[in-house]
Amino acid sequence: MVLCRVLYQGKVAKGIVKGDKVTITSGTFKGRRISLDKLKLLTPTRPTKIVCVGLNYRDHAEELGMPIPEEPVIFLKPSTSSLAHGGEIVFPPISNRVDYEAELAVVIGRRCRNVSPQDAERYILGYTCFNDVTARDLQQKDGQWTRAKGFDTFAPFGPFVVSPDDVPEEMEIRLYLNGKLKQKGTTKNMIFPVSEIVSFVSQVMTLLPGDIIATGTPPGVGPMSPGDEVVVEISGIGRLVNRVKA
Amino acid sequence: MVLCRVLYQGKVAKGIVKGDKVTITSGTFKGRRISLDKLKLLTPTRPTKIVCVGLNYRDHAEELGMPIPEEPVIFLKPSTSSLAHGGEIVFPPISNRVDYEAELAVVIGRRCRNVSPQDAERYILGYTCFNDVTARDLQQKDGQWTRAKGFDTFAPFGPFVVSPDDVPEEMEIRLYLNGKLKQKGTTKNMIFPVSEIVSFVSQVMTLLPGDIIATGTPPGVGPMSPGDEVVVEISGIGRLVNRVKA
Repeated sequence: MVLCRVLYQGKVAKGIVKGDKVTITSGTFKGRRISLDKLKLLTPTRPTKIVCVGLNYRDHAEELGMPIPEEPVIFLKPSTSSLAHGGEIVFPPISNRVDYEAELAVVIGRRCRNVSPQDAERYILGYTCFNDVTARDLQQKDGQWTRAKGFDTFAPFGPFVVSPDDVPEEMEIRLYLNGKLKQKGTTKNMIFPVSEIVSFVSQVMTLLPGDIIATGTPPGVGPMSPGDEVVVEISGIGRLVNRVKA
Repeated sequence: MVLCRVLYQGKVAKGIVKGDKVTITSGTFKGRRISLDKLKLLTPTRPTKIVCVGLNYRDHAEELGMPIPEEPVIFLKPSTSSLAHGGEIVFPPISNRVDYEAELAVVIGRRCRNVSPQDAERYILGYTCFNDVTARDLQQKDGQWTRAKGFDTFAPFGPFVVSPDDVPEEMEIRLYLNGKLKQKGTTKNMIFPVSEIVSFVSQVMTLLPGDIIATGTPPGVGPMSPGDEVVVEISGIGRLVNRVKA
């Protein structure tokens, strides 16, 4: 199943995507089938928190000359950094370098705490594309990553949430900047698989429906400039397109 | 004005505190005056985010042998770490050392973004007591502070929000562990005053009503154990009491 959240005739609603049509499943237009091009796609959920994992791809660790971590390192982006498919990433005036980081994100479906890796999938609504936008200069300056990664519009995700049943076992993650391939990776190279990450985070904090956990970026991160188009594409999951503006 | 949020006869409501009575200002019991001992106090707001400032007291920087920072370093606690006055701080099994950090917190009253220090006060609902509970061992291990400071129950705040008009110009912050004074500081020693902190954070992220910004801790932080009673007391603001449990 492919889930979305949309704005249609001034109303926010949930929907299920099939081909180029959305069946509305909540609110005034419930039951109606509407073409994707007649709707505005919103972020597929409204997360109370966005948790990200630091270094989670073997090949990215090698690229950086970093040792393979023994445990995930986690950080947070505020909910106010959420940005929908099609929305504009705003380049902050106090940064000189803003990078893309293509990631697979897990979307939580049910409240959970202290979940085992074996049980993790029961709490997952599905998967979506994520761009962990990062002001690289501020990340290096601050030590803590909150400011560098926490600006409004620095957490684009979407366009859809694909439920676990419909997700391929191995996924390819690609990032295109102005149509040129910049990042390429496969979930096979993850250091910590999704089930372990969900379990790890849930040992710390209660996860709530709609919360997002981004699972780290493969090799090839790099800078963006105002005017650029950035695309995160994950096989079987979708294609998240955003533009950068000054 | 002294604001609170309470549970009374199974209903959540807002209220105004005067002496030992609360005047309910929302919901079923609006207008009713009820004794504080007949109510359960909840966190005074339900923040969408809790922003904290790293090192913000001259005397604490000296105590640690650290240089005075040129800019605030910020980090986030998730909303799920919120804990009310009277609630229990849960000592996580994966930590061996959990510390108290008494802090003055700002509560945001109105949505804002890119606020100047001069305008900051217009967006402040008031002030409250905050305990930036920290698993010190995990903080050192991870580098990023999210896990160490993000556990459920690691952000006690309250009991009330005191509006800016009723707040003394200089505030004394004290922390008592089992009745013994452990931290003592004054807001005079803040490196970045509240107005600059609110402005700084608002350059990064949109602040929403109820959001919390904790403004750093004075000297004297230290460990707690299960069974301990920890009290953050700020002159003119209130007294936040919590117990630690295993």
